[in-house]
Amino acid sequence: MMSPRGAAGVDPSVPAPVVELVGLAAYTELAEFGLLAARSVDAPDLATRQALADGADRALARQRALLALVSADDGVVPGVVGATVMAPFDHALADFDARTDTEDWSEGLLKGVVGHGVAQDFCRVLAGGLGGSSGRAVRQVLERPAPGPEAGADAGADAEAIWLLARLAAADDVLSSRLALWGRRVVGEALGVVTALLGRRPALVELAAEAAARSGADLGGGSGGDDAVRSWLVARLTGEHTRRMDRMRLAA
Amino acid sequence: MMSPRGAAGVDPSVPAPVVELVGLAAYTELAEFGLLAARSVDAPDLATRQALADGADRALARQRALLALVSADDGVVPGVVGATVMAPFDHALADFDARTDTEDWSEGLLKGVVGHGVAQDFCRVLAGGLGGSSGRAVRQVLERPAPGPEAGADAGADAEAIWLLARLAAADDVLSSRLALWGRRVVGEALGVVTALLGRRPALVELAAEAAARSGADLGGGSGGDDAVRSWLVARLTGEHTRRMDRMRLAA
Repeated sequence: MMSPRGAAGVDPSVPAPVVELVGLAAYTELAEFGLLAARSVDAPDLATRQALADGADRALARQRALLALVSADDGVVPGVVGATVMAPFDHALADFDARTDTEDWSEGLLKGVVGHGVAQDFCRVLAGGLGGSSGRAVRQVLERPAPGPEAGADAGADAEAIWLLARLAAADDVLSSRLALWGRRVVGEALGVVTALLGRRPALVELAAEAAARSGADLGGGSGGDDAVRSWLVARLTGEHTRRMDRMRLAA
Repeated sequence: MMSPRGAAGVDPSVPAPVVELVGLAAYTELAEFGLLAARSVDAPDLATRQALADGADRALARQRALLALVSADDGVVPGVVGATVMAPFDHALADFDARTDTEDWSEGLLKGVVGHGVAQDFCRVLAGGLGGSSGRAVRQVLERPAPGPEAGADAGADAEAIWLLARLAAADDVLSSRLALWGRRVVGEALGVVTALLGRRPALVELAAEAAARSGADLGGGSGGDDAVRSWLVARLTGEHTRRMDRMRLAA
Protein backbone atom coordinates (compact mmCIF):
# COMPACT_ATOMS: atom_id res chain seq x y z
CA MET A 1 0.00 0.00 0.00
CA MET A 2 2.83 2.41 0.73
CA SER A 3 4.68 2.57 -2.56
CA PRO A 4 3.71 2.35 -6.22
CA ARG A 5 5.03 -0.82 -7.81
CA GLY A 6 5.28 -0.41 -11.56
CA ALA A 7 1.80 -0.29 -12.96
CA ALA A 8 0.24 -1.87 -9.86
CA GLY A 9 -3.51 -1.89 -10.07
CA VAL A 10 -3.71 -0.31 -13.55
CA ASP A 11 -5.80 -2.01 -16.25
CA PRO A 12 -3.22 -2.83 -18.98
CA SER A 13 -5.81 -2.28 -21.73
CA VAL A 14 -6.19 1.42 -20.90
CA PRO A 15 -4.23 3.59 -23.38
CA ALA A 16 -1.16 5.34 -21.92
CA PRO A 17 -2.43 8.91 -22.53
CA VAL A 18 -5.59 8.08 -20.56
CA VAL A 19 -3.50 6.77 -17.65
CA GLU A 20 -1.34 9.91 -17.83
CA LEU A 21 -4.29 12.29 -17.77
CA VAL A 22 -6.19 10.34 -15.11
CA GLY A 23 -3.06 10.46 -12.94
CA LEU A 24 -2.82 14.21 -13.33
CA ALA A 25 -6.52 14.77 -12.74
CA ALA A 26 -6.57 12.44 -9.72
CA TYR A 27 -3.59 14.28 -8.25
CA THR A 28 -5.41 17.56 -8.86
CA GLU A 29 -8.44 16.33 -6.90
CA LEU A 30 -6.27 15.09 -4.03
CA ALA A 31 -4.60 18.52 -3.90
CA GLU A 32 -8.03 20.17 -3.91
CA PHE A 33 -9.11 17.89 -1.08
CA GLY A 34 -6.12 19.09 0.93
CA LEU A 35 -6.67 22.79 0.22
CA LEU A 36 -10.36 22.69 1.10
CA ALA A 37 -9.85 20.45 4.13
CA ALA A 38 -7.14 22.74 5.51
CA ARG A 39 -9.48 25.74 5.22
CA SER A 40 -12.24 23.65 6.82
CA VAL A 41 -10.04 22.93 9.84
CA ASP A 42 -9.46 26.63 10.54
CA ALA A 43 -12.81 27.93 9.30
CA PRO A 44 -14.33 30.83 11.23
CA ASP A 45 -17.59 29.02 12.08
CA LEU A 46 -19.15 25.58 12.17
CA ALA A 47 -21.30 25.95 9.03
CA THR A 48 -18.30 27.08 6.97
CA ARG A 49 -16.26 24.25 8.41
CA GLN A 50 -18.93 21.77 7.33
CA ALA A 51 -19.40 23.34 3.88
CA LEU A 52 -15.69 23.16 3.05
CA ALA A 53 -15.44 19.62 4.42
CA ASP A 54 -18.31 18.63 2.10
CA GLY A 55 -16.45 20.24 -0.81
CA ALA A 56 -13.27 18.34 0.07
CA ASP A 57 -15.36 15.19 0.15
CA ARG A 58 -16.63 15.81 -3.38
CA ALA A 59 -13.06 16.29 -4.64
CA LEU A 60 -12.30 12.76 -3.39
CA ALA A 61 -15.51 11.41 -4.92
CA ARG A 62 -14.42 12.71 -8.32
CA GLN A 63 -10.95 11.29 -7.73
CA ARG A 64 -12.47 7.87 -7.04
CA ALA A 65 -14.53 8.07 -10.25
CA LEU A 66 -11.36 8.93 -12.19
CA LEU A 67 -9.30 6.12 -10.64
CA ALA A 68 -12.08 3.62 -11.35
CA LEU A 69 -11.59 4.36 -15.09
CA VAL A 70 -8.05 2.95 -15.10
CA SER A 71 -8.31 0.39 -12.31
CA ALA A 72 -7.60 -3.23 -13.19
CA ASP A 73 -9.96 -4.52 -10.56
CA ASP A 74 -13.29 -3.25 -9.26
CA GLY A 75 -12.31 -4.36 -5.79
CA VAL A 76 -8.89 -2.73 -5.83
CA VAL A 77 -7.95 -0.54 -2.89
CA PRO A 78 -8.13 2.97 -4.41
CA GLY A 79 -4.79 3.83 -2.83
CA VAL A 80 -2.91 1.28 -4.92
CA VAL A 81 -3.94 2.39 -8.40
CA GLY A 82 -3.98 5.99 -7.16
CA ALA A 83 -0.40 5.91 -5.93
CA THR A 84 0.68 4.33 -9.21
CA VAL A 85 -0.90 6.81 -11.62
CA MET A 86 -0.32 9.90 -9.47
CA ALA A 87 3.37 9.15 -8.79
CA PRO A 88 4.66 11.09 -11.85
CA PHE A 89 2.95 14.21 -10.52
CA ASP A 90 4.00 13.91 -6.89
CA HIS A 91 5.62 17.17 -5.72
CA ALA A 92 4.38 18.95 -8.89
CA LEU A 93 2.69 21.50 -6.66
CA ALA A 94 5.42 21.91 -4.03
CA ASP A 95 6.79 25.06 -5.70
CA PHE A 96 3.31 26.44 -6.22
CA ASP A 97 2.48 25.82 -2.56
CA ALA A 98 5.65 27.50 -1.34
CA ARG A 99 5.23 30.53 -3.60
CA THR A 100 1.59 31.04 -2.66
CA ASP A 101 1.92 30.37 1.05
CA THR A 102 -0.36 32.61 3.10
CA GLU A 103 -1.51 32.95 6.68
CA ASP A 104 -4.71 34.67 5.60
CA TRP A 105 -7.76 32.40 5.59
CA SER A 106 -9.59 33.98 2.64
CA GLU A 107 -6.37 34.15 0.59
CA GLY A 108 -5.81 30.46 1.34
CA LEU A 109 -9.33 29.70 0.18
CA LEU A 110 -8.89 31.72 -3.03
CA LYS A 111 -5.60 29.97 -3.65
CA GLY A 112 -7.52 26.69 -3.72
CA VAL A 113 -10.25 28.02 -6.00
CA VAL A 114 -7.82 29.61 -8.47
CA GLY A 115 -5.15 26.91 -8.37
CA HIS A 116 -7.56 24.01 -8.57
CA GLY A 117 -9.61 25.88 -11.16
CA VAL A 118 -6.62 26.19 -13.47
CA ALA A 119 -5.58 22.58 -12.85
CA GLN A 120 -9.07 21.26 -13.56
CA ASP A 121 -9.46 23.38 -16.70
CA PHE A 122 -6.05 22.10 -17.81
CA CYS A 123 -7.25 18.51 -17.41
CA ARG A 124 -10.52 19.25 -19.22
CA VAL A 125 -8.72 20.85 -22.18
CA LEU A 126 -6.29 17.92 -22.40
CA ALA A 127 -9.17 15.44 -22.23
CA GLY A 128 -10.36 16.97 -25.53
CA GLY A 129 -7.30 15.33 -27.09
CA LEU A 130 -8.21 11.81 -25.99
CA GLY A 131 -9.88 9.51 -28.53
CA GLY A 132 -12.07 6.44 -28.19
CA SER A 133 -14.47 5.33 -25.52
CA SER A 134 -11.98 5.71 -22.68
CA GLY A 135 -11.43 9.34 -23.69
CA ARG A 136 -15.17 9.92 -23.63
CA ALA A 137 -15.38 8.33 -20.20
CA VAL A 138 -12.65 10.63 -18.83
CA ARG A 139 -14.41 13.69 -20.27
CA GLN A 140 -17.68 12.59 -18.71
CA VAL A 141 -16.17 12.41 -15.23
CA LEU A 142 -14.30 15.71 -15.59
CA GLU A 143 -17.34 17.57 -16.92
CA ARG A 144 -19.75 16.03 -14.44
CA PRO A 145 -21.06 18.70 -12.13
CA ALA A 146 -20.75 17.60 -8.53
CA PRO A 147 -23.90 18.23 -6.47
CA GLY A 148 -23.58 21.21 -4.17
CA PRO A 149 -25.55 23.96 -2.48
CA GLU A 150 -24.78 26.40 -5.29
CA ALA A 151 -24.91 23.90 -8.14
CA GLY A 152 -24.86 25.31 -11.62
CA ALA A 153 -22.01 27.15 -13.30
CA ASP A 154 -19.83 26.77 -10.23
CA ALA A 155 -20.73 23.20 -9.34
CA GLY A 156 -17.70 21.27 -8.24
CA ALA A 157 -15.65 20.64 -5.15
CA ASP A 158 -15.10 24.37 -4.73
CA ALA A 159 -18.74 25.44 -5.11
CA GLU A 160 -18.96 26.42 -1.44
CA ALA A 161 -15.57 28.13 -1.52
CA ILE A 162 -16.60 30.25 -4.54
CA TRP A 163 -19.85 31.17 -2.85
CA LEU A 164 -18.09 32.10 0.40
CA LEU A 165 -15.48 34.23 -1.36
CA ALA A 166 -18.09 36.04 -3.43
CA ARG A 167 -19.98 36.81 -0.21
CA LEU A 168 -16.87 38.02 1.64
CA ALA A 169 -15.73 40.19 -1.29
CA ALA A 170 -19.17 41.73 -1.76
CA ALA A 171 -19.21 42.85 1.88
CA ASP A 172 -15.74 44.40 1.99
CA ASP A 173 -14.20 46.55 -0.77
CA VAL A 174 -10.72 46.51 0.76
CA LEU A 175 -10.75 42.72 0.99
CA SER A 176 -12.15 42.52 -2.52
CA SER A 177 -9.21 44.53 -3.92
CA ARG A 178 -6.71 42.51 -1.94
CA LEU A 179 -8.22 39.23 -3.13
CA ALA A 180 -8.24 40.43 -6.74
CA LEU A 181 -4.53 41.18 -6.50
CA TRP A 182 -3.88 37.87 -4.77
CA GLY A 183 -5.84 36.04 -7.48
CA ARG A 184 -3.57 37.52 -10.15
CA ARG A 185 -0.50 36.32 -8.29
CA VAL A 186 -1.91 32.84 -7.76
CA VAL A 187 -3.00 32.40 -11.37
CA GLY A 188 0.47 33.42 -12.53
CA GLU A 189 2.02 30.72 -10.35
CA ALA A 190 -0.59 28.18 -11.44
CA LEU A 191 0.13 28.83 -15.12
CA GLY A 192 3.82 28.43 -14.25
CA VAL A 193 3.06 24.94 -12.92
CA VAL A 194 1.22 24.08 -16.14
CA THR A 195 4.16 25.27 -18.26
CA ALA A 196 6.64 23.33 -16.12
CA LEU A 197 4.51 20.17 -16.39
CA LEU A 198 4.33 20.49 -20.18
CA GLY A 199 8.13 20.77 -20.21
CA ARG A 200 8.51 17.56 -18.19
CA ARG A 201 5.75 15.42 -19.70
CA PRO A 202 5.81 15.28 -23.53
CA ALA A 203 2.66 13.12 -23.47
CA LEU A 204 0.76 16.15 -22.11
CA VAL A 205 2.00 18.37 -24.96
CA GLU A 206 0.82 15.76 -27.47
CA LEU A 207 -2.60 15.69 -25.81
CA ALA A 208 -2.78 19.48 -25.89
CA ALA A 209 -1.83 19.54 -29.60
CA GLU A 210 -4.48 16.93 -30.38
CA ALA A 211 -7.05 18.86 -28.34
CA ALA A 212 -6.19 22.08 -30.21
CA ALA A 213 -6.49 20.31 -33.57
CA ARG A 214 -9.83 18.74 -32.65
CA SER A 215 -11.21 22.06 -31.44
CA GLY A 216 -10.35 23.59 -34.81
CA ALA A 217 -8.00 26.12 -33.21
CA ASP A 218 -5.93 28.18 -35.63
CA LEU A 219 -2.37 27.72 -34.42
CA GLY A 220 -0.74 29.86 -37.11
CA GLY A 221 -0.93 27.31 -39.91
CA GLY A 222 0.77 24.61 -37.91
CA SER A 223 4.15 26.34 -38.17
CA GLY A 224 4.25 27.29 -34.50
CA GLY A 225 4.68 23.79 -33.15
CA ASP A 226 4.78 23.26 -29.39
CA ASP A 227 5.04 26.97 -28.63
CA ALA A 228 1.82 27.68 -30.48
CA VAL A 229 0.10 24.84 -28.62
CA ARG A 230 1.33 26.24 -25.33
CA SER A 231 0.10 29.73 -26.15
CA TRP A 232 -3.30 28.39 -27.20
CA LEU A 233 -3.54 26.43 -23.96
CA VAL A 234 -2.53 29.34 -21.73
CA ALA A 235 -5.07 31.58 -23.49
CA ARG A 236 -7.81 29.00 -22.85
CA LEU A 237 -6.86 28.68 -19.17
CA THR A 238 -6.62 32.45 -18.70
CA GLY A 239 -10.06 32.91 -20.23
CA GLU A 240 -11.61 30.36 -17.87
CA HIS A 241 -9.84 31.98 -14.93
CA THR A 242 -11.28 35.40 -15.87
CA ARG A 243 -14.79 33.95 -15.98
CA ARG A 244 -14.28 32.32 -12.58
CA MET A 245 -13.05 35.57 -11.01
CA ASP A 246 -16.04 37.37 -12.56
CA ARG A 247 -18.40 34.95 -10.86
CA MET A 248 -16.84 35.93 -7.52
CA ARG A 249 -17.05 39.62 -8.54
CA LEU A 250 -13.27 39.87 -8.34
CA ALA A 251 -11.32 41.74 -10.99
CA ALA A 252 -9.16 39.22 -12.88
CA MET B 1 -26.45 28.06 5.23
CA MET B 2 -24.11 30.00 7.50
CA SER B 3 -25.92 29.92 10.83
CA PRO B 4 -28.18 27.47 12.62
CA ARG B 5 -31.71 28.81 12.96
CA GLY B 6 -33.49 27.16 15.84
CA ALA B 7 -34.15 23.57 14.90
CA ALA B 8 -33.70 24.23 11.18
CA GLY B 9 -33.78 21.04 9.17
CA VAL B 10 -34.45 18.74 12.15
CA ASP B 11 -37.34 16.27 11.97
CA PRO B 12 -39.62 17.35 14.89
CA SER B 13 -40.71 13.74 15.51
CA VAL B 14 -37.19 12.67 16.48
CA PRO B 15 -36.84 12.42 20.30
CA ALA B 16 -34.62 15.08 21.90
CA PRO B 17 -32.02 12.62 23.29
CA VAL B 18 -31.53 11.23 19.77
CA VAL B 19 -30.98 14.73 18.38
CA GLU B 20 -28.54 15.43 21.22
CA LEU B 21 -26.50 12.29 20.65
CA VAL B 22 -26.56 12.60 16.85
CA GLY B 23 -25.28 16.16 17.22
CA LEU B 24 -22.41 15.02 19.41
CA ALA B 25 -21.57 12.06 17.17
CA ALA B 26 -21.76 14.20 13.99
CA TYR B 27 -19.45 16.76 15.58
CA THR B 28 -17.07 13.95 16.53
CA GLU B 29 -16.93 12.77 12.92
CA LEU B 30 -16.34 16.31 11.62
CA ALA B 31 -13.48 16.67 14.12
CA GLU B 32 -12.06 13.33 12.97
CA PHE B 33 -12.33 14.50 9.36
CA GLY B 34 -10.23 17.55 10.28
CA LEU B 35 -7.59 15.59 12.21
CA LEU B 36 -7.11 13.00 9.48
CA ALA B 37 -7.23 15.57 6.66
CA ALA B 38 -4.61 17.72 8.36
CA ARG B 39 -2.27 14.73 8.66
CA SER B 40 -3.03 13.87 5.02
CA VAL B 41 -1.94 17.34 3.90
CA ASP B 42 1.49 17.00 5.52
CA ALA B 43 1.90 13.24 5.06
CA PRO B 44 5.43 12.00 4.28
CA ASP B 45 4.46 10.31 1.00
CA LEU B 46 1.71 10.13 -1.59
CA ALA B 47 0.28 6.76 -0.54
CA THR B 48 -0.02 7.88 3.09
CA ARG B 49 -1.58 11.14 1.96
CA GLN B 50 -4.19 9.21 -0.02
CA ALA B 51 -4.84 6.69 2.77
CA LEU B 52 -5.53 9.40 5.35
CA ALA B 53 -7.67 11.36 2.89
CA ASP B 54 -9.75 8.22 2.34
CA GLY B 55 -10.11 7.86 6.12
CA ALA B 56 -11.22 11.49 6.44
CA ASP B 57 -13.74 10.80 3.69
CA ARG B 58 -15.21 7.88 5.63
CA ALA B 59 -15.60 10.07 8.73
CA LEU B 60 -17.81 12.39 6.66
CA ALA B 61 -19.73 9.44 5.20
CA ARG B 62 -20.60 8.31 8.73
CA GLN B 63 -21.48 11.89 9.64
CA ARG B 64 -23.90 12.04 6.69
CA ALA B 65 -25.52 8.76 7.77
CA LEU B 66 -25.96 10.19 11.28
CA LEU B 67 -27.44 13.49 10.08
CA ALA B 68 -29.86 11.65 7.79
CA LEU B 69 -31.38 10.05 10.92
CA VAL B 70 -32.60 13.40 12.27
CA SER B 71 -33.11 15.31 9.02
CA ALA B 72 -36.61 16.63 8.31
CA ASP B 73 -36.14 16.36 4.57
CA ASP B 74 -34.32 13.82 2.44
CA GLY B 75 -33.25 16.61 0.14
CA VAL B 76 -32.00 18.91 2.87
CA VAL B 77 -28.52 20.38 2.47
CA PRO B 78 -26.53 18.40 5.07
CA GLY B 79 -24.94 21.62 6.31
CA VAL B 80 -28.26 23.00 7.57
CA VAL B 81 -29.29 20.14 9.85
CA GLY B 82 -25.63 19.55 10.69
CA ALA B 83 -25.06 23.11 11.87
CA THR B 84 -28.25 22.94 13.94
CA VAL B 85 -27.56 19.74 15.83
CA MET B 86 -23.80 20.25 16.18
CA ALA B 87 -24.09 23.83 17.47
CA PRO B 88 -24.25 22.86 21.18
CA PHE B 89 -20.90 21.09 20.81
CA ASP B 90 -19.09 23.78 18.83
CA HIS B 91 -15.77 24.64 20.50
CA ALA B 92 -16.10 21.57 22.77
CA LEU B 93 -12.71 20.42 21.53
CA ALA B 94 -10.92 23.79 21.51
CA ASP B 95 -9.30 23.14 24.91
CA PHE B 96 -8.41 19.60 23.94
CA ASP B 97 -6.82 20.85 20.73
CA ALA B 98 -4.80 23.51 22.50
CA ARG B 99 -3.58 21.14 25.22
CA THR B 100 -2.56 18.43 22.75
CA ASP B 101 -1.02 20.67 20.13
CA THR B 102 2.04 19.07 18.55
CA GLU B 103 4.36 19.73 15.63
CA ASP B 104 5.20 16.04 15.36
CA TRP B 105 3.38 14.23 12.56
CA SER B 106 3.04 10.83 14.24
CA GLU B 107 1.96 12.46 17.54
CA GLY B 108 -0.66 14.42 15.59
CA LEU B 109 -1.89 11.22 14.01
CA LEU B 110 -2.06 9.42 17.37
CA LYS B 111 -3.91 12.39 18.84
CA GLY B 112 -6.62 11.80 16.21
CA VAL B 113 -6.78 8.06 16.84
CA VAL B 114 -6.92 8.38 20.63
CA GLY B 115 -9.12 11.47 20.80
CA HIS B 116 -11.58 10.30 18.20
CA GLY B 117 -11.49 6.80 19.64
CA VAL B 118 -12.59 8.06 23.05
CA ALA B 119 -15.23 10.34 21.50
CA GLN B 120 -16.66 7.57 19.36
CA ASP B 121 -16.69 5.09 22.25
CA PHE B 122 -18.44 7.76 24.34
CA CYS B 123 -21.14 8.09 21.68
CA ARG B 124 -21.50 4.31 21.41
CA VAL B 125 -21.90 3.88 25.15
CA LEU B 126 -24.48 6.70 25.29
CA ALA B 127 -26.37 5.17 22.36
CA GLY B 128 -26.99 2.18 24.61
CA GLY B 129 -29.26 4.46 26.63
CA LEU B 130 -31.53 5.32 23.70
CA GLY B 131 -34.82 3.50 23.36
CA GLY B 132 -37.12 2.80 20.43
CA SER B 133 -36.49 2.42 16.74
CA SER B 134 -34.59 5.71 16.44
CA GLY B 135 -32.19 4.54 19.16
CA ARG B 136 -31.63 1.29 17.27
CA ALA B 137 -30.97 3.27 14.09
CA VAL B 138 -28.34 5.43 15.81
CA ARG B 139 -26.63 2.34 17.24
CA GLN B 140 -26.60 0.72 13.80
CA VAL B 141 -24.78 3.68 12.24
CA LEU B 142 -22.31 4.02 15.12
CA GLU B 143 -21.48 0.31 15.16
CA ARG B 144 -21.30 -0.03 11.39
CA PRO B 145 -17.74 -0.82 10.38
CA ALA B 146 -16.59 1.48 7.62
CA PRO B 147 -14.86 -0.32 4.75
CA GLY B 148 -11.10 0.10 4.79
CA PRO B 149 -7.85 -1.57 3.83
CA GLU B 150 -7.48 -3.05 7.30
CA ALA B 151 -11.15 -3.71 7.97
CA GLY B 152 -11.95 -5.78 10.99
CA ALA B 153 -11.48 -4.83 14.61
CA ASP B 154 -10.06 -1.43 13.63
CA ALA B 155 -12.49 -0.63 10.83
CA GLY B 156 -13.48 2.99 10.90
CA ALA B 157 -12.28 6.32 9.67
CA ASP B 158 -8.98 5.81 11.47
CA ALA B 159 -8.26 2.30 10.17
CA GLU B 160 -5.35 3.57 8.05
CA ALA B 161 -4.05 5.79 10.85
CA ILE B 162 -4.01 2.85 13.29
CA TRP B 163 -2.24 0.70 10.74
CA LEU B 164 0.34 3.39 10.00
CA LEU B 165 1.04 4.03 13.69
CA ALA B 166 1.41 0.32 14.45
CA ARG B 167 3.90 0.07 11.59
CA LEU B 168 5.89 3.12 12.70
CA ALA B 169 5.98 1.98 16.33
CA ALA B 170 7.05 -1.55 15.43
CA ALA B 171 10.03 -0.21 13.49
CA ASP B 172 11.33 2.20 16.14
CA ASP B 173 11.50 1.47 19.88
CA VAL B 174 12.27 5.07 20.82
CA LEU B 175 9.30 6.35 18.84
CA SER B 176 7.14 3.59 20.31
CA SER B 177 7.96 4.71 23.89
CA ARG B 178 7.40 8.36 23.02
CA LEU B 179 4.04 7.57 21.40
CA ALA B 180 2.97 5.45 24.37
CA LEU B 181 3.68 8.39 26.68
CA TRP B 182 1.92 10.79 24.32
CA GLY B 183 -1.10 8.48 24.14
CA ARG B 184 -1.44 8.58 27.93
CA ARG B 185 -1.40 12.36 27.87
CA VAL B 186 -3.96 12.56 25.05
CA VAL B 187 -6.35 10.08 26.65
CA GLY B 188 -6.22 12.09 29.88
CA GLU B 189 -7.22 15.23 28.01
CA ALA B 190 -9.90 13.37 26.05
CA LEU B 191 -11.46 12.00 29.25
CA GLY B 192 -11.36 15.57 30.58
CA VAL B 193 -13.46 16.67 27.58
CA VAL B 194 -15.96 13.91 28.29
CA THR B 195 -16.25 14.94 31.94
CA ALA B 196 -16.66 18.61 31.00
CA LEU B 197 -19.38 17.73 28.47
CA LEU B 198 -21.26 15.69 31.05
CA GLY B 199 -21.12 18.70 33.36
CA ARG B 200 -22.60 20.99 30.71
CA ARG B 201 -25.19 18.67 29.13
CA PRO B 202 -27.48 16.94 31.66
CA ALA B 203 -29.16 15.05 28.80
CA LEU B 204 -25.90 13.19 28.25
CA VAL B 205 -25.70 12.17 31.93
CA GLU B 206 -29.24 10.82 31.70
CA LEU B 207 -28.32 8.82 28.62
CA ALA B 208 -25.25 7.44 30.37
CA ALA B 209 -27.32 6.45 33.42
CA GLU B 210 -29.87 4.70 31.20
CA ALA B 211 -27.08 2.96 29.28
CA ALA B 212 -25.52 1.79 32.56
CA ALA B 213 -28.89 0.50 33.81
CA ARG B 214 -29.60 -1.33 30.54
CA SER B 215 -26.15 -2.92 30.53
CA GLY B 216 -26.82 -4.29 34.01
CA ALA B 217 -23.88 -2.38 35.49
CA ASP B 218 -23.59 -2.50 39.26
CA LEU B 219 -23.34 1.15 40.27
CA GLY B 220 -23.15 0.53 44.00
CA GLY B 221 -26.84 -0.13 44.55
CA GLY B 222 -27.93 3.11 42.93
CA SER B 223 -26.67 5.17 45.83
CA GLY B 224 -23.81 6.70 43.84
CA GLY B 225 -25.94 8.78 41.51
CA ASP B 226 -24.25 10.82 38.81
CA ASP B 227 -20.77 10.23 40.21
CA ALA B 228 -21.21 6.47 39.97
CA VAL B 229 -22.45 6.84 36.39
CA ARG B 230 -19.43 8.97 35.55
CA SER B 231 -17.01 6.46 37.05
CA TRP B 232 -18.67 3.60 35.20
CA LEU B 233 -18.42 5.56 31.95
CA VAL B 234 -14.77 6.53 32.41
CA ALA B 235 -13.91 2.90 33.22
CA ARG B 236 -15.62 1.76 30.00
CA LEU B 237 -13.79 4.38 27.92
CA THR B 238 -10.43 3.62 29.53
CA GLY B 239 -10.89 -0.08 28.82
CA GLU B 240 -11.61 0.56 25.15
CA HIS B 241 -8.62 2.90 24.95
CA THR B 242 -6.33 0.20 26.38
CA ARG B 243 -7.53 -2.28 23.77
CA ARG B 244 -6.94 0.27 21.01
CA MET B 245 -3.38 1.00 22.20
CA ASP B 246 -2.74 -2.76 22.38
CA ARG B 247 -3.74 -3.12 18.74
CA MET B 248 -1.05 -0.56 17.87
CA ARG B 249 1.40 -2.39 20.20
CA LEU B 250 1.67 0.75 22.31
CA ALA B 251 1.65 0.49 26.10
CA ALA B 252 -1.53 2.15 27.38
